[in-house]
Amino acid sequence: MPDQHPPPATFPDGLLAAGARYERALAEDDLAALDDLFAAGPATLRGEGGTALAGHAEISAFRAARGGAPPRRVLRVHVRPLGPHDAVTVTETERLDGGTGLQTQVWHRDGGTWRVAVAHVSGAPASAAPDATPAPADGTATWRVAPRADGPLVPATGAGPLTGVRTAVKDLVAIAGQRIGAGVPGWLAQAPVETTTAPALLALLGAGAEVAGIAQTDELAFSLLGANAHHGTPPNAAAPGRTTGGSTSGPAAAVAAGSADLALGTDTAGSLRVPGSFCGLYAWRPSHGAVDGTGVLPLAPSFDTVGLLARDPAVLHAAAAVLLPATGGRASTDRHRSGRPTALLRSATLTALAETPTALAVDAALAALAVRTGLPVLDVGDDVAPADVAAWTAAFRTVQAAEAWAAHGGFVTAHPGALSPAVEARFRAGEDLDAAAVTGARTVLRGVRQRLEALLERGWLCLPSTAAPAPPADASPAEQDRTRAATLALTSLASAAGVPALGLPWGRVGRLPVGLCVLAPRGADAALLGLLAEPGPPAG
Amino acid sequence: MPDQHPPPATFPDGLLAAGARYERALAEDDLAALDDLFAAGPATLRGEGGTALAGHAEISAFRAARGGAPPRRVLRVHVRPLGPHDAVTVTETERLDGGTGLQTQVWHRDGGTWRVAVAHVSGAPASAAPDATPAPADGTATWRVAPRADGPLVPATGAGPLTGVRTAVKDLVAIAGQRIGAGVPGWLAQAPVETTTAPALLALLGAGAEVAGIAQTDELAFSLLGANAHHGTPPNAAAPGRTTGGSTSGPAAAVAAGSADLALGTDTAGSLRVPGSFCGLYAWRPSHGAVDGTGVLPLAPSFDTVGLLARDPAVLHAAAAVLLPATGGRASTDRHRSGRPTALLRSATLTALAETPTALAVDAALAALAVRTGLPVLDVGDDVAPADVAAWTAAFRTVQAAEAWAAHGGFVTAHPGALSPAVEARFRAGEDLDAAAVTGARTVLRGVRQRLEALLERGWLCLPSTAAPAPPADASPAEQDRTRAATLALTSLASAAGVPALGLPWGRVGRLPVGLCVLAPRGADAALLGLLAEPGPPAG
Repeated sequence: MPDQHPPPATFPDGLLAAGARYERALAEDDLAALDDLFAAGPATLRGEGGTALAGHAEISAFRAARGGAPPRRVLRVHVRPLGPHDAVTVTETERLDGGTGLQTQVWHRDGGTWRVAVAHVSGAPASAAPDATPAPADGTATWRVAPRADGPLVPATGAGPLTGVRTAVKDLVAIAGQRIGAGVPGWLAQAPVETTTAPALLALLGAGAEVAGIAQTDELAFSLLGANAHHGTPPNAAAPGRTTGGSTSGPAAAVAAGSADLALGTDTAGSLRVPGSFCGLYAWRPSHGAVDGTGVLPLAPSFDTVGLLARDPAVLHAAAAVLLPATGGRASTDRHRSGRPTALLRSATLTALAETPTALAVDAALAALAVRTGLPVLDVGDDVAPADVAAWTAAFRTVQAAEAWAAHGGFVTAHPGALSPAVEARFRAGEDLDAAAVTGARTVLRGVRQRLEALLERGWLCLPSTAAPAPPADASPAEQDRTRAATLALTSLASAAGVPALGLPWGRVGRLPVGLCVLAPRGADAALLGLLAEPGPPAG
Repeated sequence: MPDQHPPPATFPDGLLAAGARYERALAEDDLAALDDLFAAGPATLRGEGGTALAGHAEISAFRAARGGAPPRRVLRVHVRPLGPHDAVTVTETERLDGGTGLQTQVWHRDGGTWRVAVAHVSGAPASAAPDATPAPADGTATWRVAPRADGPLVPATGAGPLTGVRTAVKDLVAIAGQRIGAGVPGWLAQAPVETTTAPALLALLGAGAEVAGIAQTDELAFSLLGANAHHGTPPNAAAPGRTTGGSTSGPAAAVAAGSADLALGTDTAGSLRVPGSFCGLYAWRPSHGAVDGTGVLPLAPSFDTVGLLARDPAVLHAAAAVLLPATGGRASTDRHRSGRPTALLRSATLTALAETPTALAVDAALAALAVRTGLPVLDVGDDVAPADVAAWTAAFRTVQAAEAWAAHGGFVTAHPGALSPAVEARFRAGEDLDAAAVTGARTVLRGVRQRLEALLERGWLCLPSTAAPAPPADASPAEQDRTRAATLALTSLASAAGVPALGLPWGRVGRLPVGLCVLAPRGADAALLGLLAEPGPPAG
């Protein structure tokens, strides 16, 4: 079957707002609002279990007798427009008491108002084992210093919102008494024992977190693949048989498998967002400079950030709240810093960089976000992603390679054979770069940044975290690389602009997770992270 | 809420045929056919439980791994057209192993072919107690001679397809050794003990049926209400608090409550079809003369028939098969007698005689019949029910009253006060009728019959069995009579034409049953009853 049908360009005007009203009315058991959201008359249908109720009056009486629905969160809203006045939504939810729900609604717009003409709801109870495949045992592909039964590698230094949070620390972060391994045995062999713990990690420890272990990284963090020629490919418990993506591969594997709750990692060109997308984790890449990177091995300082991954959005939110004020990052004076946006922006051009099933899956997550927040989705067309996607990606690669060579060219030169050929080739691409070429590339990126900043005045930009879900771990390098250019085009946007990015792991392509990535104005991290606290649609 | 929106005039062309193909493919686990019935591409959705599968490939893989769906029968298909190329169907099914199923499908027509774009399925297990309200105890409102624990009132005289079938006999049918009560104490008091059992009942007894008891009737069968001024209103176990309808009220109550399996009754103007509709029973009014009426008290011989009610379609089918050849009814030479039709006919005018929720419910049953049989539904507009519905109903009442007075005027005159005033008034309406008026009325009915016969050349006519579900048993007489004129217009059509009618109890208005009535050409009873054997769509 051909699978490259284009996804719909926009959501029908006002439909998701009606969905948000519906979720709010359901949460509040607002019978009058629910009655108004269903089409009047005897033809309206509502099915559940094995029976359909027919007629608005019958449905209304059912709801009045029910006494409310169990609280729930919207995870995905698959929108299928049928024409100017008709649309179908299929909403996947998670109940706060566990279990999942599914709701199909056929909407009709009459006089500008969307109402439900046909509804069908079902659910499934919470499953103790959501996946029949057991998580592979953690191993050396995941951990360089594995968790031990006799206690954390580094205990908490205080009590606070992160007490008991087991943290997997990427092997780029200084921990007093430990070496940094950087995913390269030849690096570890020459690395000094650190005497000071990185401030970002210190902040987490002070808030109650403990270091469970030191987790693997792609070599010197210069890859998005999640494969390491020396240590192997960490298993992805959320997508068995698939890669975790990288370069924060080991921490992502540990959090996905449940052997850690939080990952402290880095993101230069997507190294948190890609594993977040592949492993079904919440991912936060901060505004550039918002979290102190002292004590963390650099790759390309113009783009390097220190950020987080977690399974539980509350853990990510709490940890990010600890990092933001506590570290020495530059305080932003941006007026957007504390504000919610007035819209969610969707770029058809950016969305179309993803494979169609992924684009549809991310659209379903975006629609869920719109329903949760009550924010409209605006189509911004080509405003941020004109035909020069290839140009900005090339510019990004140029600057990244130049800075990476500047950071590690000395090591690469001094330790022939320490890196795998593929990674060494990436560094070498920065070796002989013409200064004018780098300057030109920086000019291109400045233009991208300016356009993105202007766009983010209008709302938060939502795009796929990756162009596809995780590839099979045993796929050929060519197959693993198939969507890398498209993914890099998506991820390098935030990197080039220094804006914060939040990865929401709500998309599904089959059983494989894919992330929705939300970009906010630089410095608006706290407001962006507020999406994690959204229990449902706003009250207003 | 206004509940008088018009139902859709027709079903979208070819949609139900696609539904029939779907049911057949599902029954046969024909994966290629199922694949072809779902829209290609990644946007197609199928939801079940708490999860949606996205994309044709994913859905196809699911079906291939499932190994078939449990066998089921379609009970109702609610069709909601959305435009020329889009429609929703909500299908209610019963699984052959018990339990019910519900399937919402959003269809899109592309190049003339309907395919499923979005599907959602759910189910409910078989319930030991489908209704929380216990059936009221049988009493004198239901039975004149109630079943006894020590054995049947009349045992079977042979063994056959009806062995063990407990039959409630309407108190109009001669049973050797019993009087006929006719729902009127004053009639019973003067009635002789019968010496011969009616041939229709003898045929059932010979095939293994037994007489459980003698069940009440509306007075002299001259009412559709199901109320009896002397014995009370039999309870309706299928619609607690509602009437059973009449005049075969006691037998219907007994079968609905499960204290009998089969009812032997009469239908002059709807006296089997109305209780069948109100009590959720299969009902058969034979072609006029097809079942021997000897030994059964007449009401209006031009219209009187002896027929059946049952909960289980197989019981009705078997009993009807016993009655058809075994009794002395006139053998039909009609060429339609053994043939299946090529279409199901729907008259918007007749359907609109029912209240809108009932019309929608009956349309859902009709769509189910179309899906089960694979027959198309043709809209016949006004072909059978022109603007003179009132004229033919009046003509029918005139002839019925004249014949009823001819049959029982002597008793009515000789026993003042024996009948309730309302029923006596009905007989008295026939007392002084002008002969020319009756002749004129017979001419009107002959015209109705000719038009209907011509129509039935094109297919079987499907209409509501009643204009509404059963009214509350405690409703005022005016409220109980509210839809009587419309119901009589619907039922008198078969009565006037002498054609067979089969009531299928598939409609639901809320929890209340309403019947779909199918009319076939005179003499085509066996083919019409073949609908009861339809386990699913035909193989061809």
